[in-house]
Amino acid sequence: MHHMEKKLKVSKEIQSLIAERLPGHSLDAPFYLSPEIFDLDIREIFSKHWIHVAVEPDIPEPGDYVTVEIGLNSIVVVRDDDMAVRAYHNVCRHRGARLCSEHKGSVGNLVCPYHQWTYNIGGELIYAEHMGEKFDRSKHSLKSVHVENLAGLIFICLAEQPPQDFSVMRDAMAPYLLPHGLKDCKIAKQVDLIEEGNWKLTMENNRECYHCATNHPELTASLFEFGFGYQSAPGNAEQIAEFNRLAAERCGEWERGGLPSAEIERLDELVTGFRTQRLPLDRAGESQTLDGKVASGKLLGEFERADLGGLSFWTQPNSWHHFMSDHIVSFSVLPLSAERTLVRTKWLVHKDAREGIDYQLDNLTAVWNATNDQDKRLVELSQQGARSSAYQPGPYSPFTEGLVEKFCTWYIGRLSAGLAEQSAGSPVTMLRRID
Amino acid sequence: MHHMEKKLKVSKEIQSLIAERLPGHSLDAPFYLSPEIFDLDIREIFSKHWIHVAVEPDIPEPGDYVTVEIGLNSIVVVRDDDMAVRAYHNVCRHRGARLCSEHKGSVGNLVCPYHQWTYNIGGELIYAEHMGEKFDRSKHSLKSVHVENLAGLIFICLAEQPPQDFSVMRDAMAPYLLPHGLKDCKIAKQVDLIEEGNWKLTMENNRECYHCATNHPELTASLFEFGFGYQSAPGNAEQIAEFNRLAAERCGEWERGGLPSAEIERLDELVTGFRTQRLPLDRAGESQTLDGKVASGKLLGEFERADLGGLSFWTQPNSWHHFMSDHIVSFSVLPLSAERTLVRTKWLVHKDAREGIDYQLDNLTAVWNATNDQDKRLVELSQQGARSSAYQPGPYSPFTEGLVEKFCTWYIGRLSAGLAEQSAGSPVTMLRRID
Amino acid sequence: MHHMEKKLKVSKEIQSLIAERLPGHSLDAPFYLSPEIFDLDIREIFSKHWIHVAVEPDIPEPGDYVTVEIGLNSIVVVRDDDMAVRAYHNVCRHRGARLCSEHKGSVGNLVCPYHQWTYNIGGELIYAEHMGEKFDRSKHSLKSVHVENLAGLIFICLAEQPPQDFSVMRDAMAPYLLPHGLKDCKIAKQVDLIEEGNWKLTMENNRECYHCATNHPELTASLFEFGFGYQSAPGNAEQIAEFNRLAAERCGEWERGGLPSAEIERLDELVTGFRTQRLPLDRAGESQTLDGKVASGKLLGEFERADLGGLSFWTQPNSWHHFMSDHIVSFSVLPLSAERTLVRTKWLVHKDAREGIDYQLDNLTAVWNATNDQDKRLVELSQQGARSSAYQPGPYSPFTEGLVEKFCTWYIGRLSAGLAEQSAGSPVTMLRRID
Repeated sequence: MHHMEKKLKVSKEIQSLIAERLPGHSLDAPFYLSPEIFDLDIREIFSKHWIHVAVEPDIPEPGDYVTVEIGLNSIVVVRDDDMAVRAYHNVCRHRGARLCSEHKGSVGNLVCPYHQWTYNIGGELIYAEHMGEKFDRSKHSLKSVHVENLAGLIFICLAEQPPQDFSVMRDAMAPYLLPHGLKDCKIAKQVDLIEEGNWKLTMENNRECYHCATNHPELTASLFEFGFGYQSAPGNAEQIAEFNRLAAERCGEWERGGLPSAEIERLDELVTGFRTQRLPLDRAGESQTLDGKVASGKLLGEFERADLGGLSFWTQPNSWHHFMSDHIVSFSVLPLSAERTLVRTKWLVHKDAREGIDYQLDNLTAVWNATNDQDKRLVELSQQGARSSAYQPGPYSPFTEGLVEKFCTWYIGRLSAGLAEQSAGSPVTMLRRID
Repeated sequence: MHHMEKKLKVSKEIQSLIAERLPGHSLDAPFYLSPEIFDLDIREIFSKHWIHVAVEPDIPEPGDYVTVEIGLNSIVVVRDDDMAVRAYHNVCRHRGARLCSEHKGSVGNLVCPYHQWTYNIGGELIYAEHMGEKFDRSKHSLKSVHVENLAGLIFICLAEQPPQDFSVMRDAMAPYLLPHGLKDCKIAKQVDLIEEGNWKLTMENNRECYHCATNHPELTASLFEFGFGYQSAPGNAEQIAEFNRLAAERCGEWERGGLPSAEIERLDELVTGFRTQRLPLDRAGESQTLDGKVASGKLLGEFERADLGGLSFWTQPNSWHHFMSDHIVSFSVLPLSAERTLVRTKWLVHKDAREGIDYQLDNLTAVWNATNDQDKRLVELSQQGARSSAYQPGPYSPFTEGLVEKFCTWYIGRLSAGLAEQSAGSPVTMLRRID
Repeated sequence: MHHMEKKLKVSKEIQSLIAERLPGHSLDAPFYLSPEIFDLDIREIFSKHWIHVAVEPDIPEPGDYVTVEIGLNSIVVVRDDDMAVRAYHNVCRHRGARLCSEHKGSVGNLVCPYHQWTYNIGGELIYAEHMGEKFDRSKHSLKSVHVENLAGLIFICLAEQPPQDFSVMRDAMAPYLLPHGLKDCKIAKQVDLIEEGNWKLTMENNRECYHCATNHPELTASLFEFGFGYQSAPGNAEQIAEFNRLAAERCGEWERGGLPSAEIERLDELVTGFRTQRLPLDRAGESQTLDGKVASGKLLGEFERADLGGLSFWTQPNSWHHFMSDHIVSFSVLPLSAERTLVRTKWLVHKDAREGIDYQLDNLTAVWNATNDQDKRLVELSQQGARSSAYQPGPYSPFTEGLVEKFCTWYIGRLSAGLAEQSAGSPVTMLRRID
């Protein structure tokens, strides 16, 4: 056993929790608390699915790299000389030292700082001193990781056999995303926020706007809350109908102008689940800003008009993105422990937009910085509650929490599938937890 | 299994440690170190007994609340409109968010910050948007917690069936405590001190004054060390006899004046164990201050004289209180982990006493702030020692550590009773530990 | 079971990892990560072998003491009135409080701060108040720990039966070390550095200089990298031959002058494994300083010339020392947890050397402070890599990592021997881990 493959035993208690999840309700507390289930999440969800980790503007030039942590694995995502994006485990094949310890950088080769073992960007070991005649460099290449690129959004998969249905998502989504020209953007700002809560609470929070009206004044300045499922009642029936008329009208207009806008919802029926929808915005109707106007005067892609609403793209298990006419906000969620999660947010503008002239950074980031901070608090309150012996799964709203339910259904389904596969005999890499 | 009830298995090793505890000696090291025994303490001691958590002056008005953490449970203790004190699990019945995240506050209703589910102070869910026609609000009330109020000292019990003998303690203690008028006090100061040690070391430290003479110069300015069991020896026999004469004389005088003062000691024979005693003080003899004089010029209750000594009241498992003529000091101990404990201290004066005029805060708090800091160090030295493989339970002094022994006897007895009850078949709520 | 003796079960998985270690390769990841293996290391390596913990100049006068932590055990090492060095568990026999909480100090007796139980420096309990007539002080002495003193280097062993071959190391090493007069030194500086890595990565790093050329510019100013095994190649063959000629010439000269200098290498064949070698230095050739000149004008022992090269002494499992003509640098490694290690460095000069006149502290410590910081980074990069599922043991260089391999061989051999001994039936003290 010279590598770390072993079967991670899943206790009967956890198997029961998975098998007996009550539909339409929040998950049992151990899903938010248990280090064992966290290990299972890393193994079954984050090591076997397509995980959004970067955007092309993170690494515009050959040799540019970003590192990303998935569980205890560090991955380096690097631009090769042929402009392709490659990914490797960030671990030297000599004595295991981390190769790249910065979050971002640029290199000629990947050189281990310990004893200068040197790998080219293709992952081949091209130099190792003092190893003697018998040493075979070709057996010590970096371990590679699968990469996919969807209109500039970079996804990786740690599994040897990644899910095959990425192409379904790509085929459906490329026409929606490409017009926004993500590849020709630059990152105006990145914020890494740590939430003291389980990653699934972060995702559940992202999948509903039931909490928006009272918690997100900045976001709801431009976002119509009616876009996310509202119970029709005497007090709001007229507003809802009005919103639906507006949405139908604008979507028709956008579609006729060549911008796909209709909802696609495949959140819980695909392994690589996703959803998209382009919705009108409130106020000036142009962008998710405090006044609804574009934050950047340099529009994206070939756009000639600013009032294109907001195209949202949600993926299972860990990302969402809002594409507007002038900027893109891209989010990825990375679990750090059972009770701690990283939310990474990137604001992208056209690469030719000039800070201070075409856009003001404060204005660009005002809505989502405020919204993220508000959501962090809500996730943390939920985490605190889940620790209580008085916590029990509560009912989701059939109106406003349908997509939360789809997230949970997808999650429980993927765990079940993974356990079934394992009992069918395939060996599994255990990701060890730090105590 | 949609709620978190399960039997927590107690290992044979722990069962042996409980069964084989050596009387008259400090506990085996795992009682101070083991996370498993910590979980057991939370379950058997802190979730099944009457725990002191607040005083009435914490919540003088309707809608006033305090929150308190017992293990991973957060409880909100709130004054109802009818002036009764109520307590609830601080957990929304929707998706479990914590309702009140402040330690103290004042509310009209209890409103969840996440999706505005709203409970009245009686715990009933009175508002929940978007839940549809079939949703039954009456099945989603807050989960309530038992409350008792002894002369203004508030105790809660998380068990469904709390110990029945609270009334024994109330009947015995009310005549001692009521003359001090705790309900008409205000909290002049609260200090939360975290000790890096097991909660039982905090309690053991509280139950003896063998360590006082060399460690607590401020406390022993007014406290006669002879009041806590001293070995008579040629060097101190005369002092001890003199103290006993003084104590008998003063107690007689106080009793004749209508203030019960005789010792009651039921620490290890009741489930709700307690002890009380009124003892003379040194120097000016009025209060536990540096000069022995009252710290507040506005006397408590109907008192007309200041030299009433100190009435102490100790409860199992987590509190002690010193009632003087001018102020009250009230302590509660809340375990945070196997090796970390919160000691909460409140100084109370008459609600009409004016800070800076009737009392100086520094003078009021000087003795117990210093004493708490000294005790924190002693508890932490003991905790460090318990980690050593060289630690073994040592002998308690038959003279000065008798009440420490009673604490341990009570504690071991309550664990044994709990395990016996469990093996007799009752299901138990497991309180999960955070890693 | 009133004391903490019990058999610590070693899982079959760990037994397999020990049995199947691949020679010539770095260890399997759990050896660097697993808390269970950390406990095993404390028990089998650090509690059964001779551990370097202090030097005589730490405690020059009677009553002087240092405390040291080995796992969760605190040990006090103290100079007795007869100038012998003694060691005790730093735990009061009453209620277990830590006796000495400072790292260094001076005492008349060892007095417990809690209740003033008082032990003389011989470890006998000479005073304990209030314990009654039946109490037998002679049964409550401090628990003693074995001590050895090799030319001023102090080693302790926590086992009841320490390894018998300390005398082999002493007999071999005393002639090398005594001329440097460690007993007549003083500690000019001590630095405690915490590395976020397993202690074995710290030791592996110490046992090779493959990483020196690119990582340690300050150290290689005076250290010839060729002294630590280099692969001969067209580019360096001449330099290596030149170094070997120089080393042979200088060693002959030193030996003729009465200073043993030849290599002794018994790293993996003794329980108390060690290695020594005196090598020439570069530049001025006198000392491990930036310019190779002595850092202290007051030479050690009876030395009359400064160009004595560097005598290095390495011990298993936790120390190394460099003895020069003017100063000594002494290192000890103490594991704090599976992923955290203390490296303690002491710089010693002649006790009559005057700071600011005979030596400048900055100059004295420049090389090893810089080198330690660089090594800390390398150890931490290795630790990070070991956490990855992509880590697998990599091959050691047959030229430059031979002593790393000997460290691993010794380590695995000692674990195997300990497990064999245990299965033969001897009871073992379990050292509990803090969560």
